[in-house]
Amino acid sequence: MVKPLDTRLNTLIQQRIDLKTKPLGALGKLEVLAAQLVQIFSQGQTQLDIEQLAITRPAMFVFAGDHGIASQGVSIAPSEVTGQMVANFVQGGAAINVFCRQLGWQLTVVDCGTLVPCEPAPNLRSQRLGDITHAFHKQPAMSEMQLKQGLEYGEQVVMSAIEAGSNVIAFGEMGIGNTSSAAAILAALSGASVELCVGRGTGIDDETLCKKRALIKQALEYHQDKLATPEQILQRLGGFEIVQMVGAMLAVARAQKVIIVDGFISTAAAMLASRIAPHSKQYMVFAHGSMEQGHKLMLEQLNAEPLLHLDMRLGEGTGAALALPLLQAALGFFCEMASFADAHVTQVVDA
Amino acid sequence: MVKPLDTRLNTLIQQRIDLKTKPLGALGKLEVLAAQLVQIFSQGQTQLDIEQLAITRPAMFVFAGDHGIASQGVSIAPSEVTGQMVANFVQGGAAINVFCRQLGWQLTVVDCGTLVPCEPAPNLRSQRLGDITHAFHKQPAMSEMQLKQGLEYGEQVVMSAIEAGSNVIAFGEMGIGNTSSAAAILAALSGASVELCVGRGTGIDDETLCKKRALIKQALEYHQDKLATPEQILQRLGGFEIVQMVGAMLAVARAQKVIIVDGFISTAAAMLASRIAPHSKQYMVFAHGSMEQGHKLMLEQLNAEPLLHLDMRLGEGTGAALALPLLQAALGFFCEMASFADAHVTQVVDA
Repeated sequence: MVKPLDTRLNTLIQQRIDLKTKPLGALGKLEVLAAQLVQIFSQGQTQLDIEQLAITRPAMFVFAGDHGIASQGVSIAPSEVTGQMVANFVQGGAAINVFCRQLGWQLTVVDCGTLVPCEPAPNLRSQRLGDITHAFHKQPAMSEMQLKQGLEYGEQVVMSAIEAGSNVIAFGEMGIGNTSSAAAILAALSGASVELCVGRGTGIDDETLCKKRALIKQALEYHQDKLATPEQILQRLGGFEIVQMVGAMLAVARAQKVIIVDGFISTAAAMLASRIAPHSKQYMVFAHGSMEQGHKLMLEQLNAEPLLHLDMRLGEGTGAALALPLLQAALGFFCEMASFADAHVTQVVDA
Repeated sequence: MVKPLDTRLNTLIQQRIDLKTKPLGALGKLEVLAAQLVQIFSQGQTQLDIEQLAITRPAMFVFAGDHGIASQGVSIAPSEVTGQMVANFVQGGAAINVFCRQLGWQLTVVDCGTLVPCEPAPNLRSQRLGDITHAFHKQPAMSEMQLKQGLEYGEQVVMSAIEAGSNVIAFGEMGIGNTSSAAAILAALSGASVELCVGRGTGIDDETLCKKRALIKQALEYHQDKLATPEQILQRLGGFEIVQMVGAMLAVARAQKVIIVDGFISTAAAMLASRIAPHSKQYMVFAHGSMEQGHKLMLEQLNAEPLLHLDMRLGEGTGAALALPLLQAALGFFCEMASFADAHVTQVVDA
């Protein structure tokens, strides 16, 4: 069960923020972020213990999976590219590797089921649910058994990080075709039109975009009587990486640690997790606003304000990775900055 | 003289970005930033030398000065707070100190002229032009001599950092009343209405905002025949910290290093510098969009797109400080990320 955050320290937390040597609210989103992080890190405590407020062993997971729908011509890249990119992650050559090295993330790649399985490697976790999902426009993407197994796999992989000391867990992904799956999930959850939900992914042209929209419309019609619960939506329209992300997010929320949500696919998983367990949203930080059409709608549905707006649309967890210094800055000013009294600065209280 | 950037490596730089293992343009603003940084760091070279592409000894300067206009009741805080905050910077208790420590900035506080001078300290540079400027609604803020001296002081302080190896220089500030000065500069440079240019600073109420606007209107009328050049605007409406920032930005541009522009006051200085030497804009990175009204208009005038949007309005260089990890990420992906060929990933070229 995901517990709601205990609010008993909230007044104390806000007071501490307001007494820092700065105009009220002048650190904007960092103040909101600081309050959320401190609240999460102080769960179960009756007093504010500044010493123990720290991000420890931040862990980035890149969940990879292949999508049957890709064979219907909805992407510019063939499904083989998923496995090739997993190999690139394992070898350290992708954007997410660079950002993780620079910023201090522990990176784990999770093979959730790719067409071409990757060779075993120390930073690769194999949790395959199959080679590729079924094309979901005429059948469910996966079986109920795969759904159940995927949710468990997701939990397992993040719990090992939490047991190793991670208190911030970020969610990236890779999977050719997965913007189709995420867009279908968004349409099913929000009821918004396919035109609003479905975008260009890695960069498809107008004709392919039309085809992608038609296919997703077809899928929503085909499954229409079986999309009543988040679990049904996940099984019928999801992907192997998305189901594991949902299971993992729920586990992080249960453990009362911080969930860093990346872009379009990661936010689709966040929407599902927060439908399954509404309190899980309290543990989520939305790292960036993706350029993928539909992400804005997802964030509106979640009433979420992302930290970064860098016009990115790469996935892999790259937006989530780049948010870490902002989390550290938020916690840093909360713990280290002087108060008006400490610094002998005249506090001006608004009339 | 500020030289325009040599463009001969631009095609090579863009090709390298486009061959990285990611969809074309998928890293958004980081790609534009990488191209700019690599171009600046490669000046004078005929080949792309990846080994020497690095940010070295990033230097943050906080220029502090007091403003006579503050005595006219345009701010919620008294001028004494400027000196108190300088003491806070020197002692390490302000937000900018926390962010500089976390992110690796070398911080120097520059006393450009504050009502209460600060005790000498290792990280404080005393370059005082006076105790406080004149209230500029009925007389010039400073003399021509002070203007000239201020531009030189600004150059001197950043050149010592550049000589010590800094190739990225950030511009923060502190000064009660300085949003009035920056707003007046914006109005004079852009011709936009005082209503558009003048905002709430640290958080004044409606009545004080009316008074602030009336005062700035009065100032613009009083000086109207003497605002033809950026130098005149600076002398008549500027501040001791703003004039030193302009001199310093021009020096960084002449030395072909990177200028990181912070919020409203810092961008006023950037506008003036780029009026004096238009090519200086090529060396500027705009770190964040401030919540202070008028900053948006400044950025439009400069045709600049800031990196961060965190609803901040603190000054001190805090927005500039937080942009450093993004500069490092941009350079990092450019230098370290694998190409399609390196990683044996199928490159899909758009039809």
